Amino acid sequence: MIENPFYSHEIHGDYDVVSIGRLDLEEGGTIPDCHLAVATFGTLNEAKDNAVLVTTWFSGTHQIWRDVYIGPEHALDPGTYFIVVVDQIGSGLSTSPHNADGPNAALAMSDFPHVRIGDDVVAQERLLREHFGIDELALVVGGSMGAQQTYEWAVRFPQKVRRAAMIAGTAQNTPHDVLFADALVAAITSDPGYAEGEYKSNDDVVAGLTRHAGIWAVMGFSTEFWKQEVWRALEFDSKEAFMAGFLEPYFTAMDPNDLLTQAWKWQRGDVARHTGGDLAAALGRITAKTFVMPIDEDMFFPVRDVEPEQRLIAGSELRVVHDVLGHLGLFGVAPTYMPQIDQHLGELLAAPA
Amino acid sequence: MIENPFYSHEIHGDYDVVSIGRLDLEEGGTIPDCHLAVATFGTLNEAKDNAVLVTTWFSGTHQIWRDVYIGPEHALDPGTYFIVVVDQIGSGLSTSPHNADGPNAALAMSDFPHVRIGDDVVAQERLLREHFGIDELALVVGGSMGAQQTYEWAVRFPQKVRRAAMIAGTAQNTPHDVLFADALVAAITSDPGYAEGEYKSNDDVVAGLTRHAGIWAVMGFSTEFWKQEVWRALEFDSKEAFMAGFLEPYFTAMDPNDLLTQAWKWQRGDVARHTGGDLAAALGRITAKTFVMPIDEDMFFPVRDVEPEQRLIAGSELRVVHDVLGHLGLFGVAPTYMPQIDQHLGELLAAPA
Repeated sequence: MIENPFYSHEIHGDYDVVSIGRLDLEEGGTIPDCHLAVATFGTLNEAKDNAVLVTTWFSGTHQIWRDVYIGPEHALDPGTYFIVVVDQIGSGLSTSPHNADGPNAALAMSDFPHVRIGDDVVAQERLLREHFGIDELALVVGGSMGAQQTYEWAVRFPQKVRRAAMIAGTAQNTPHDVLFADALVAAITSDPGYAEGEYKSNDDVVAGLTRHAGIWAVMGFSTEFWKQEVWRALEFDSKEAFMAGFLEPYFTAMDPNDLLTQAWKWQRGDVARHTGGDLAAALGRITAKTFVMPIDEDMFFPVRDVEPEQRLIAGSELRVVHDVLGHLGLFGVAPTYMPQIDQHLGELLAAPA
Repeated sequence: MIENPFYSHEIHGDYDVVSIGRLDLEEGGTIPDCHLAVATFGTLNEAKDNAVLVTTWFSGTHQIWRDVYIGPEHALDPGTYFIVVVDQIGSGLSTSPHNADGPNAALAMSDFPHVRIGDDVVAQERLLREHFGIDELALVVGGSMGAQQTYEWAVRFPQKVRRAAMIAGTAQNTPHDVLFADALVAAITSDPGYAEGEYKSNDDVVAGLTRHAGIWAVMGFSTEFWKQEVWRALEFDSKEAFMAGFLEPYFTAMDPNDLLTQAWKWQRGDVARHTGGDLAAALGRITAKTFVMPIDEDMFFPVRDVEPEQRLIAGSELRVVHDVLGHLGLFGVAPTYMPQIDQHLGELLAAPA
């Protein structure tokens, strides 16, 4: 375990850390005492039918959902819904390599086991049932790796998911995505300061984390984002200033092993492992009313990778989100982004399911 | 100077290395005795009006043009044209960091000066004029960085260029491209074996060159290339085998400083520096009959970055090349690629100019 001030209430505001006990992992390891960080908004009604689960993306936490997606002016309105945002395993707030201690001490740092999207979803289901008494969800929604978790929920627990919205992600990770994440991983692990995962501080790996940010710059945003200098909207004067003032510090604050745990999971997201590799059969299990929402400028979850999956989901709709930022449009920087998300999620929540 | 067997006649076949003498560089340095590697095909006619200049791309040499683009079955037919392929400065065959010796010894390795696309074109013009007695070109053609050189030729020496074909490249490099090349550069320079450019062998930098190949995998090919497993056409059984058997050895054989010299040049390709930043004015100087030929699946020279430049060239035509490989379609792997190139170049060469 090492101290990293980024993973704190000071940075991430209010959240609870809840133990769900022992979690046996799909890949064979075990987390003896799995903790999930969870932030809630609104109140569970008596019928317990107004719960919305939000899942988180690579490097993201409940914070961005709280700050951008959730509020009285949004479809995810805490006045109507009980919104539960669960930070993924390896997020740095839930059980993660850098914070493993006590009963999890044997999992610290490079000893952390491989975790899969399915493990997160099993953990989340237990948290909702045992801690909140929630047995069904009005909506599961997530972006990117959060979309992977949402697919997993809809396939694994179809009777519990009334509606599902997958933003900028796929049910089955693509080979190109695997290579992209390989490049991200290599940027970190090649830093001598990484020390095979046994660094003393994320500061030891600042060079690798900076290169990792540099690759995100190329793939996370669209070519048009850079050409149109959309970073000016964030009040930077140059792309160099945007990199040095935004994208690099965003990642260098984080824990390398935590990011690698998430990357390993991301690369292996695949609901078809429930059906012996048959993606159509897996997606055929979904009974939720489903909106599949790729971002049109996404460089690594392009619409054409997303749409064939959507077509395998009965009664689903493809709702393309238009955003020049590309994948990292998920940050909600463009003023035209959230109105689209709210429109789609609002329609979905209003639909019978 | 270090020995690198990749840059040899054994690997690259027949070519001559011609001294063009002292080359004063745009950035202020000097190459005391600049050598250009040049491969020719066909015969210069008496009127000296059948010369075609081919310029080379990042990491590429005359070899790929000889093997894929030039021949009696192609538009670039040595039976009709005198085809001169000039390897760029920093290519490893022409004067480059790893081979600087004799009068250039002070430029070896990390002491190599910054070279620009314009320096290559000035050097090529001198080579053609002084060594071959060529004063005008029936065609200048190149892909990627070769397209950058072709733009530079058409803007800088309009009276010498009757026709120009720019494949998969731009006249003015984009900010996204700069970031992409930054990531490639960082992959190499971050390798401790790189030793600030003073490694003893490219083998010392194999880890960095391998990461560099990994980033090319993500950007050089399209998402569809990977999804459709087009690498099977090259008789590999898995994408891992394709990486380990093709893309990684392709780059690890090369010299790191040579690649970095090319990358620096690539990042700064911009014909508008001739006109105080006015791209329209620069492209307005072109009198060549011009075909601009982006590849539709190119991840980093997308059609939408290329087309606005094409529209600034009087009488030019946009000829989009369709290739699922993306940028590295330039390798000519798809059986549908060369027929398109031959069609376009054949029409261009047949057009009055």
